[in-house]
Amino acid sequence: MDNRGELIQKITEMVLEHWNRLSADPYQVPVGISARHVHLSREHVETLFGAGYRLTPEKLLSQPGQFACKEQVEVCGPKGTIKKVRILGPERKQSQVEMAFSDCRSLGITPPVRISGDLKETPGILLKGPVGEVSLKEGVIIADRHIHMTPEDAKWFGVSDGERVDVMVPGEKGGVLGGVLIRVTRESRLDFHVDTDDANAFLLRQGQWVTIRKEDAR
Amino acid sequence: MDNRGELIQKITEMVLEHWNRLSADPYQVPVGISARHVHLSREHVETLFGAGYRLTPEKLLSQPGQFACKEQVEVCGPKGTIKKVRILGPERKQSQVEMAFSDCRSLGITPPVRISGDLKETPGILLKGPVGEVSLKEGVIIADRHIHMTPEDAKWFGVSDGERVDVMVPGEKGGVLGGVLIRVTRESRLDFHVDTDDANAFLLRQGQWVTIRKEDAR
Repeated sequence: MDNRGELIQKITEMVLEHWNRLSADPYQVPVGISARHVHLSREHVETLFGAGYRLTPEKLLSQPGQFACKEQVEVCGPKGTIKKVRILGPERKQSQVEMAFSDCRSLGITPPVRISGDLKETPGILLKGPVGEVSLKEGVIIADRHIHMTPEDAKWFGVSDGERVDVMVPGEKGGVLGGVLIRVTRESRLDFHVDTDDANAFLLRQGQWVTIRKEDAR
Repeated sequence: MDNRGELIQKITEMVLEHWNRLSADPYQVPVGISARHVHLSREHVETLFGAGYRLTPEKLLSQPGQFACKEQVEVCGPKGTIKKVRILGPERKQSQVEMAFSDCRSLGITPPVRISGDLKETPGILLKGPVGEVSLKEGVIIADRHIHMTPEDAKWFGVSDGERVDVMVPGEKGGVLGGVLIRVTRESRLDFHVDTDDANAFLLRQGQWVTIRKEDAR
């Protein structure tokens, strides 16, 4: 078979798989597991890695323009430290540290569950890089479970930005992830972001499909 | 106030609290969080700790006759090891290792989700004690979520031994723990046993009260 034939066959298979999935259950979303990570401001990149330093993209993430970097830092809390915490790019206006609750236990801090960017009255933490250290006054959160989607996806699911839904997970340690925030932007790609504690508890696999259930539809 | 008055006041408060809880929601159960642990056979106690050695009870557990011991072992998997894993007593016919999924990731093993004692075709692991080592051929499980209760409790909740229920958890990372097994015995004390992955994901606290929902009542 020539390349064109293979391509047509591959596309046909993809369309059929998508069709079968939607026929079985039209409200499915893929799981994206977020390990603990750090977002940095320009100023903090320079303090931690050196003047004029630029982050090195290593792997593209599901959301367009977002990437995991080669760079890592050490996160130091009052009770313990976690080495090799990945930096995510691009740079942000304010540095932010996203940890699972289990990480926070070992660090000895009790941050709130928050949406990315909502850092008011969150605890600080010490970051150590190869060149310098940054003592954040605030910025540590446990990421609120959320689903990224486009306006078209939102129309399909019958949900809107800021709404909260339940997500049903099958399996031996299945159940329902409650209060999952819908985040609609033009530049999104459909992805249900959970932290590693949620993934471990529900035995979730990266890319697994799970089902949205609207809370008021119970 | 004399001691008798204090006692009467305390009992009155306890009865009122219990009454208020049942009035608000009659289907509540307290959470008991099980950290990773090991049950040992007589033979393995002696191999790990020495001939004739007896386990030292340190803390009584919720289920009558069960206790956490002073003794700890190192659990060694193909990918990593976990030090200071607690032994639970009394001794059992067959040794058993209960790990959270996150523990299994760091050990490099993939045990099934099982009820305690159901060890057929489960992976083995190496245990290191102060005196000797034991290479288990089988015995590692991820504990199936379960609720211990008496026949009277079961009658109250309208459930029976072996049935599976959902358990609803409130809060910012709330939701539903699905497929929770009901285990009824005469000697039980009401307790909903979850592992640390579940506890971390749902931000559960030891002793917190959560609500049973029968699966067919959805």
